[in-house]
Formats: sequence, structure tokens, C-alpha cells
Amino acid sequence: MTAFPHPDRLLPADPATRAVARELYEAVAGLPILSPHGHVDAGILLRDEPYAGPVELLVRPDHYVLRLLHAQGIPLEELGVPVLDGAAQVGWPDAGTPRNVWRLLCRHWPVFRGTVMRLWLEHELADLFGIREPLGEETADDTYDLIASRLAEPGMRPRALYRHFGLEVLATTDSPLDDLAAHRALRDDPSWDGRVVPTFRPDALADPGHVRDWGKLVERLGAVSGISTASYSGYIAALESRREAFRALGATATDHGHWTADAVGLSDWEASRLYDRLRSGRRDQGDEAAFASHMLMEMARMSADDGLVMQLHPGVDRGHDTPSLVRFGPDMGADFPVPTAFTSALASLLGRFGSHPAFRLVAFTVDETTFSRELAPMASYYPALWLGAPWWFLDAPDSMNRFWSAVTETAGFSKSAGFVDDTRAYCSVPARHDLARRAHCSFLARLVVEHRLDGQDALDLAADFAYHLPKSVFRL
Amino acid sequence: MTAFPHPDRLLPADPATRAVARELYEAVAGLPILSPHGHVDAGILLRDEPYAGPVELLVRPDHYVLRLLHAQGIPLEELGVPVLDGAAQVGWPDAGTPRNVWRLLCRHWPVFRGTVMRLWLEHELADLFGIREPLGEETADDTYDLIASRLAEPGMRPRALYRHFGLEVLATTDSPLDDLAAHRALRDDPSWDGRVVPTFRPDALADPGHVRDWGKLVERLGAVSGISTASYSGYIAALESRREAFRALGATATDHGHWTADAVGLSDWEASRLYDRLRSGRRDQGDEAAFASHMLMEMARMSADDGLVMQLHPGVDRGHDTPSLVRFGPDMGADFPVPTAFTSALASLLGRFGSHPAFRLVAFTVDETTFSRELAPMASYYPALWLGAPWWFLDAPDSMNRFWSAVTETAGFSKSAGFVDDTRAYCSVPARHDLARRAHCSFLARLVVEHRLDGQDALDLAADFAYHLPKSVFRL
Amino acid sequence: MTAFPHPDRLLPADPATRAVARELYEAVAGLPILSPHGHVDAGILLRDEPYAGPVELLVRPDHYVLRLLHAQGIPLEELGVPVLDGAAQVGWPDAGTPRNVWRLLCRHWPVFRGTVMRLWLEHELADLFGIREPLGEETADDTYDLIASRLAEPGMRPRALYRHFGLEVLATTDSPLDDLAAHRALRDDPSWDGRVVPTFRPDALADPGHVRDWGKLVERLGAVSGISTASYSGYIAALESRREAFRALGATATDHGHWTADAVGLSDWEASRLYDRLRSGRRDQGDEAAFASHMLMEMARMSADDGLVMQLHPGVDRGHDTPSLVRFGPDMGADFPVPTAFTSALASLLGRFGSHPAFRLVAFTVDETTFSRELAPMASYYPALWLGAPWWFLDAPDSMNRFWSAVTETAGFSKSAGFVDDTRAYCSVPARHDLARRAHCSFLARLVVEHRLDGQDALDLAADFAYHLPKSVFRL
Repeated sequence: MTAFPHPDRLLPADPATRAVARELYEAVAGLPILSPHGHVDAGILLRDEPYAGPVELLVRPDHYVLRLLHAQGIPLEELGVPVLDGAAQVGWPDAGTPRNVWRLLCRHWPVFRGTVMRLWLEHELADLFGIREPLGEETADDTYDLIASRLAEPGMRPRALYRHFGLEVLATTDSPLDDLAAHRALRDDPSWDGRVVPTFRPDALADPGHVRDWGKLVERLGAVSGISTASYSGYIAALESRREAFRALGATATDHGHWTADAVGLSDWEASRLYDRLRSGRRDQGDEAAFASHMLMEMARMSADDGLVMQLHPGVDRGHDTPSLVRFGPDMGADFPVPTAFTSALASLLGRFGSHPAFRLVAFTVDETTFSRELAPMASYYPALWLGAPWWFLDAPDSMNRFWSAVTETAGFSKSAGFVDDTRAYCSVPARHDLARRAHCSFLARLVVEHRLDGQDALDLAADFAYHLPKSVFRL
Repeated sequence: MTAFPHPDRLLPADPATRAVARELYEAVAGLPILSPHGHVDAGILLRDEPYAGPVELLVRPDHYVLRLLHAQGIPLEELGVPVLDGAAQVGWPDAGTPRNVWRLLCRHWPVFRGTVMRLWLEHELADLFGIREPLGEETADDTYDLIASRLAEPGMRPRALYRHFGLEVLATTDSPLDDLAAHRALRDDPSWDGRVVPTFRPDALADPGHVRDWGKLVERLGAVSGISTASYSGYIAALESRREAFRALGATATDHGHWTADAVGLSDWEASRLYDRLRSGRRDQGDEAAFASHMLMEMARMSADDGLVMQLHPGVDRGHDTPSLVRFGPDMGADFPVPTAFTSALASLLGRFGSHPAFRLVAFTVDETTFSRELAPMASYYPALWLGAPWWFLDAPDSMNRFWSAVTETAGFSKSAGFVDDTRAYCSVPARHDLARRAHCSFLARLVVEHRLDGQDALDLAADFAYHLPKSVFRL
Repeated sequence: MTAFPHPDRLLPADPATRAVARELYEAVAGLPILSPHGHVDAGILLRDEPYAGPVELLVRPDHYVLRLLHAQGIPLEELGVPVLDGAAQVGWPDAGTPRNVWRLLCRHWPVFRGTVMRLWLEHELADLFGIREPLGEETADDTYDLIASRLAEPGMRPRALYRHFGLEVLATTDSPLDDLAAHRALRDDPSWDGRVVPTFRPDALADPGHVRDWGKLVERLGAVSGISTASYSGYIAALESRREAFRALGATATDHGHWTADAVGLSDWEASRLYDRLRSGRRDQGDEAAFASHMLMEMARMSADDGLVMQLHPGVDRGHDTPSLVRFGPDMGADFPVPTAFTSALASLLGRFGSHPAFRLVAFTVDETTFSRELAPMASYYPALWLGAPWWFLDAPDSMNRFWSAVTETAGFSKSAGFVDDTRAYCSVPARHDLARRAHCSFLARLVVEHRLDGQDALDLAADFAYHLPKSVFRL
């Protein structure tokens, strides 16, 4: 029987191209993993407790997996997602129990054929548990029990996995209101020699149109920072103070998921009046969008000042399924992209900071039309603009290939920021990086075989992508 | 001499990939054809008369072919298209005669090189008439006479072709005002054992901004249904009644080609007032669009009630060439796509019906930017949303490949609705399905050779695409 | 050691496909070059002086190269770009000297890996100077000196290069205000047997919203044409007169780079009133856009009258980096694409002229979403509409491949206008055409191997693309 997952998986079909791709991949497969953008909870590394079970490890934190099961008509309750008010809502006793969720995954394993989620999970199941057969309904209980028993082993705890995965840096994503206690405790833990850094994500405070109770959050910002946010200048100072606190605990970047990329700055006087109006509750039409736009510019200014790398990923309609949002809350897979403008939206910001030596903007998109039309052209001109990895709905082999094909002919490889896994599912981190390295080596191999790239250059570029570019771009 | 069309046509170049693709194709090439969406006239199967000639069979009903000949500067009159007022409009006697239209096609055969229309016609010419050489000016009269003589044979009549083509179901597209006499007669014909089902397409009644004489059509709806449409509630009841009549004759689906996908429901009171205003002729700006948007939501509600699968294909500017529209009428090839929004347009509809167990929405697009940005993400979440086949301007090998590449990594294969031929040209039905099967097997073969898909899984998915998915998605 | 650049560069990896591509390429590699759209200065051919040095030859005129160096954080001053007020602005003595600019290029040569600029430059360095090694910091002075010394040879002068490049026609791009003295002198020079033709580009006069001092330019138009532009009718007559002057010196085309493709004609009376208002300085909101839109329609009317082929390329935000625009002026690489509408924008123009036998519109885009959605569908219907080459940010191998893949299945090959180099860098003309021919042959070869195209047809289509199509479409 052949090995599974296949050692040549994802490498191109043409034999000569595959040989080059394999050589490139072998040179970078073992490089340490830098994860500069993701959503793993720092607390799991602090506590270092065994995982509760297969579902808590592999299914519950991965809304990519939940999403596709939901698309088969399985209600989120049956997938174990708690309803917001805490009341049980399903008609049969075992619904939503981990074992039944695992059975649902196994029964619906065929619907994952061809998806990137299946490629990741196959990698994880083989690497961590030696499971090298497809999941299936008949073997659901066997695989559940096998994984559950292995999770009791010390080598399966989060810190051991950190070493097993070859992680060098793991960035989390955190609210300015977070006190970063876990990060601080990890820093002060003599038995921990890994590197977990926070990322400053102020959307809830900077974009008043897309959160409830913005006013209360702003008050909490005052409490956390110890700086009164009664005035606009206090609000700005409080944000700057929180950025400093993040930096002190190792943060090298911020993250901004505004509705649009619009970034038009106001004068201090205008911003101050607008802030007061928003706080008072007497908002005019357009006030929220104008403030969010202004704050994006302010965040760029702060990044130019303090050196935190600014990450931007606009263009997602979050909580699209309103009934589900009300029932289960956000981040349940119902966030969908919309057409996104970068050229027009960023003209003012890039005019002001696009050539600033200390400023750095990494732009992500889930609208792939912007790859060749807006992002690559602008990154091939502005020194401060970098191309974020193809991610989210675009982090699969063919999608990534389209990204590189669309941007490198214009912008080369030097303006790319490598790969980000952007995952809440800790165990998928190495699977995602491995897949990205395979895909990137496959792309490079084609250029080599088409005599568009020298073989040694390809080796260098493969290592840049896997390690050196994210290290330098994210100032790690 | 090698066979023509080549048995391996459209299969990928790489030898290993081609071998896998060929094996997949051979497994599905002979499966029956389900045609759940098309524009063939049911009357031709009822009457079962011999075709008048080559042009009436292959050219006249295929506006893809007419379009490209027109693009060479040939006026539609010379292609035999009658002007609306019936007056002869060309300067020379034989213009527009079938033989001369055939000569024009043969003379311009080189302009079809590389197009999907040529691949279809080559398939049809070889399969039906044994013509295995390229058409050409010198042989135009020979091929014309050959085809004409063969059309007199009994095996070339529509019902014999239905069996020859391996058709299992053929869906037509019909107005609610159609009495479906041909469908009824076919059902009652003891000598007919095929299956021709109507499809409910109410655009002319539901989208008052894009038809002339909407008011008269609404009155005719009252007459056809026997329910007065003087009031909004009567209009709704009349539509529901016509849906029921369609269902009684085998319809399993509706079809909606609104200008946009906007679907925002009004209250009954609002809808009723708007209906009255539209009927009165005193329309306010935006009334027509608001009514169309409301009616799309109503159609979703009715589908959730009666189980007719809802097909939606927005985003086409129809009758773009106004002078031609005035002279020749619609459907002459001058319908062109515009950018289309799905995420924002469907939020309300999918919030209401996206998880409804009886509702089913199949979304088609001719804006391929929506594949990875909007449609695949939403279909990978909403149980009720399915991905319509890449069609119209996107039903060719490379286009279909881009579609599968863009959607399957996120949504897998289970949320696709297979292939639809969408043709008015009866003889192109099997050619189009054969081409789609070849292209799909080629796509799957690449995944197999790249070790992203198991060989047996690929066989299953090839059969799903060719047969099982359309059968279940369209409730056939 | 293998030859460099490799003779098979850019040909596809699959051996069978490569063999076909190579055969096609060899058949067209030596065809003369038609350059119907570009920005080389006619004066260099008139004066026929030696080039000043490597930077003046290869770097300074190529804003693609400058752009990517700028993206590395090198200020334009250090690249030798003069600031508008003429004052020196850099802090060290040799900044911006040709030798130092060359050193910067060599030091940053790795950032060009994978880009089309590197492929072009490698071609140029090998072909003109026998440099077959990658540039590099250590050899920067050697390569500089080598090139500088060769530039003194008579064979390196512009006219000798014209013959060496195999040029048959070179079109320049010129303002209606240009007196075309260089073109006239070339025509009258008995020692010159090449063909350099002007192209009529009236944007600065027709689009009042995107130039400064539109009123003064209109006055200058009156002076150059000898027809008073005090009235709208005079302005139109003056433009017609300048078109005639361009035609008399060999022009076969016009070129229009409006902000949008909107083309809605006004009545003479409306246009005249609008013209007066714009001239008076009392402009209403929307006046400038309305006039530009009207003038696009007027230009189409004039093309239908005088036969000049109309080229249109909307959708670029020019001078995006405002501080740089103020400091260095336009055309420094900070022009970036925005989403562009063709279907809706051109409905009126194509309704009026799309089937006009004398009219010809070649549409270019840098928004590749319009390839399959708008341009190919419309070009497959309207006899007067042609598909401009993929260009600017889309003129690289993968981008061009996406273009052909997106348009030919619908529109075939006959509605494409071949390749345009669109370059300001004279020496890159043959490199760009060679690369396009290689890419096109690679695309055709795939169709041959996939049995979608006959081998002889592919040979014909390769020659059509390289020579016959641009010759006929641009009426050369």
C-alpha cells in the first residue's frame, strides 16, 4: 500500500516539474514555522492542559469544518455550538455531544473531498495520530477512541505540540481591552521557551458602526488604559498607550478588519467633534463610516510612529446569516466577501505614508479580482505596501497559485509577506504551512522548468517565502 | 488518418493525467443525459416532424453561432433572421435563404477556431452526419445536401434523436401565461415514453421594469389562471395557481433572470400599495426595482412552500444593441453581463430561507469574479444554496475549469448542481454535456495525479456530476 | 554551460506541448514587428544619435523598472528622476548619476526575479550586448562600461536598431497640439526607409476634469489648427482638422485614456452650452464628466467618418501618489487600475456605431475581470469591437495566458488585435514582442495537444497574432 497522505501530494503532474518542486520542497519542509497572524488562544499554551477530546481539538475551533457540515443541513446545535441564551434547543438527547459531532464529521467525510479542509485534516490525523485511512461512518467510534486515548499522552499537550510543530513564533489576535495576562504569564514562566506574541486589533473600538455598545467599549478602554476617554484626545492617547503595552509584550503588528479600506483623515478638530457626536448617541448618517475611515488613517499614523506593522483586511460582510448571529453569535462561518476597492480607498493613506521609511502596511483580501488590478500594481510602487498571503477563502492550492500568478509578474516575490495560517485551530497550523510550502514550491518549479527562473534562485525564493520574508516583513 | 473529432479531445496534455481523465470519462460518457435547464421547444417533440434543413437544425436556433457570424460584419438579415415588421430588408435576392446561410457559416468556419461553438458543432456533425472534416467554402453545398438528405430519415426526427442522445429528462422554460398544451399532449401521448417537463419562468410578470405592457401581461395572467389579478392578493394567488399547474405537468423548478439578485421583501400592505401604483401607471422612481426585489423574495417563499427548485441568474444587460432590438426583437445574442452582487443582494433572502429544509436555490452567474468571492463561500455555509453550472459565456472547457478550481477548494463538490446546457439548439444538448463531462473528468484527473483526491472518489464524483447531482438537486 | 536566455524559455513544461509550441514559435519568431501602440519618441529616430549610456537606454525610459526599484524604498531622486523645480534634493553627491543608478539596478536585480521586466531586460542584454549572466552588484561597473562602450558603435544607433529589431511600423502617441515636426522630417528624409506614424491622443483636450489649464490647451488647439476654438463648433472643427493632419502623416489610429468608458452623446445645442460653461470657468458638478463622455462619442463619430481606428483604455487612477505627482510630475509609475465598466458604459456608443462598417474600436483594459464578463461577449457580437492586447500590468506570460483563456472560447481569435508593446523604452520593443509570441504559441500548443485545434490552424493563428491581425485591425 502506498503512503498516505502521499509524500508528493500537491506537487504538479508534469514529471520534470514535479522533480524540481520536490527538491524545493525538501529544502524548506523542515524550516521553523513563523505564524504572524492567527487566532489561537494564548491561554492554551499557558495552561498546557490536555485537550478534552477529538472534537475539541479538531472540529470545534475550526469554523471552516463547521461551515461545510452546516451546509449539509446539520443545525449548529447538533454540531455542539451552544446557543447564546444557554438553553438546550435540540430534540434528541445526544445531539451536540462530542462523540456525535465526530460521527457527523465521519459520516459526511465525502463532502470534504477536494477541499482544503480535508487536506489539512488528513495531514493532522496522520501526523498526530497515525490515521492514514479516510474517515468513515463505520470507523467513527474507533477513530474517536484512538484520538481520545492519545490525547492523554504528555506529547499531545499544547507546549509539546508547539515543539513538535516546529513553531518559532505564534501571534495571537487581541482586543485593546484585553489585559494580556496570559501573554505576561507566559513571558514570566521560566519553563516556557517559546514565543507567543499578541496582535493589536482595535476594530471594535475604531469602527463604531459594526459593534453594539461602542460607547461602553470606549469607557472600558479608559479603564484598562487608565486614561480617560471622555475626550477624543484621551481616546487617542488611550489607544496609543494600549499599543505600547502590546509592544512591551512582544507585539510587532496590528490587525484591522474594517468593512471597507477607506482611510480619509480628518483634522483633530473635526475628529473631536465627530467623536463627541458618536458618544452622545446623536449620530448623523455617515458619521460611523467617517469615523472608521479617519481611525484607519490614525492607525497608520501610529504605526509610522511606533513601528507596529499594520495589517488590513477589508471587504467582508460579517454575520450575514442574521438569525444565526442572534442565536449563536459571531464567527460561525457566515462571514462572506464583497467586492473591495483598494486603489481608490487607500489613495490618501498611501500618499501620506506609502513612502514613509518606518511605516509598513500588509494588505489582505478575499476579493481576488484585486490581485492583479490593484494590490500588485500598488505594491510594485509603494515601498510601505506589502502583499498579504492569499488567505481565508483563498488559502488553498489553486487559489494560492492564482495569487502568485497574478502578482509576481508585476511585483516580483520581494513584496510578499509569506504565508499566514489565520486559524483558530491550533493543530491546523503546521498542516496549513506545509500545504502552502508545497503549493509555493510547485509554483516556483513551473517557472524553473519554463526557464523563467534559475534553479538556485528558486531555492532562495522558497526559503524566503517559508521563513525569511515573514520574519522580516512582520519584524519578528 | 486519425479519427476526428479526436477521442481524447479536451483531455489534459500530461500523459499520466490524461490516462486518469480518459478512464474517468469512459466511466461516465454513456450515462443518461439530464437536461434540467434549457430552451428547446416542447412542440418539436410533440409534433416529431423532420427538420426543415441544416440551417433550421444547427444554425437558426443557436444564437451563439449567429452572434459570432454577426461579429464578422454579416447583418442578421443575411443570416435569415426576420425583421420584426416582416418586410424584406436586404439588397440581393438569395440573402438569408438557408443555403446561403449555410454557405456563410462554411466560409467563416475559421473564425470559430478555438471556440466552444466549433467543438459542439464538430461533435454534432460527426455524430449525426458522419462529417469528420472541417467545414469550408468549397464543400458548403456538399455538406448542406448531405445533411438535408439525412434529415429525411426517420432516425433524424426529434423523438428518435431523444433516444439517440440518451436523454432521460428534458426541461423547457415557459411563461406562466403558457397553457402548456404541448407538455399536456406529450404526457397524454401513449406512444411517447420520454420526459419533457416545463420550468416556471415568471420574469415578465414579476419584473415590471424590463417588459413592455406589464399591465396587460398581468391581466392575461388573470385570464389564464382564472383568478382575478385586480388586487395584489389575487396576483399572488394567480401565480401560485400557475406554479401548481406547472407542477402537475412535471415541473420541478422555476427560473428567474432578474436584472439584479436583490431580494428584499415588503409587508403585504406595502406590496399591495406598490402593486396598485404600478398597475395605475403612476409609478414613482424605484417602484419597479422594489417590486422586482420583493417578488424575488415572494418566489423564494413559494418555493419553500411548494418545493419547486428556484434558479436565479441575475446580472445580464439584455437587448444591449438597441437598434437591433427594435428591428429583430430579443434573444439575438446582444445580451451581455455586468458586475453582479450576490453577498449583499441575497442577505435578506438567505437569512430567511437559506437554512429552510424545503427551500433550494441554484445560483448561476456570468460574472466569474463571484465564484470564489461570493458564491462558493455562501454555498459552503447555507444548506439551501447550490452552485449552478458555469454556463452561457462560461460553459467552455477553460471557463468550467476556472469555476471548479475557484469553488471546490472551499465548497467541495457536493454543493454543485452538475451541468446545464441552457440551449435552444436541440442537437447541441448531447455535445454540450459530452464536453462538460470531458472537462470535469480532466479537472478531477489533475486532483488525482496531484494526490489531492483518491481514484475511486474521482470515479464517484465524475458520476455525481454527470448524473446523480442534477437528479437530486433538481428533484428529478 | 547552457545558453542564456534559454531558447525554450516560456514554453510549456509538458514535453509534447513544448514541442508543438517550439514549432509554432520558430515559424513566427522572425516575422517583422508591427508596433501599433507605443510611446517611443519619434525624435530619436529623426536625430539618430548614439544613446548617452546604459541608464538612458534601459532604465530611465522604463517606468516599469523605476517603479519596482522605488518599491524597494529608493527615492526617485536617487534613480535620477529630476524634481520639477530643478533643485537638487538628495544628500550625497553622486545620487542619481547614471553610474549609480545602474549600480542600484544591479544591486536590486534579485527583486526582479519572476517579473516580466527581468525577462525583457535579459533578452535585451543578451541580444544587444552579449551579456548572458545575471546582473549583480560585483559586476555592475563592468556591465556598465561594456554597454557604454558598445553604445558608441554605429550599429547601436536608433535607425540601425530599427532594422536590427525587424521593425516594420512604429506608432508613436501624440497630442493634437503637437506639430508632428519629427514625423514630417522623417517622412521627408530620403535616407530613412522605416515607417514611424503618429497616433492622435486628445485626452487633455477632451477630458477637462483631468488636466490643469484645459482652457489654455483649447486655445492652443485653435492656434495649432488655425481654427478658432471660441465656439464649440470651432473646437470640433479644430479637432477634425488635427486628425486630418495626423492622417496625412500616416496616422491610422487614435488613443483615448479617459477615466471611465462612459460615452453618452449630447445634442449639439447641449454640447455647445456645456462647452461654453466649461470655458467660462463656472462649471457645475458633473459638467466635466458629461463633456468627457460626450467627447468619447464624438471621437467615435469622427472615427466612423475618417477611418482612424479608435483605441480606448479607461479605468486607471493616474497620479495616485499625490506628493510624488507634485514633486516629479506624471508617468512615474504611480498609475493604478480601478474596476472598470464596459457593458453599461458603451451601450450607447455601440448601439450607434457598433455595427458601422467603417468604425473600429479596440478596447484595452487593466481590469481582467472584464475579459470574460464584458469584452469577449461584446466583441463576439459587435462587428466594430476588437479586443486590445492584454497590456500594462497584464502583458506578462501568465496574464496573457489568462486573457486568451478567458476570451477565445467565446470570441475566437479573429476579434483580437494582436500585441501592442505600449513602451517608452525603445529597446524593449522586440523583447516584448518576442515574449508575447512565445506566450501565444504556448497557448495555442496546449489547444493542439488537447485536440481543440488543428496543427495547421495553430500555425496560421500564430502568424495572425504576430503579424496579420495587427496589420489589418490597425489598418497598417
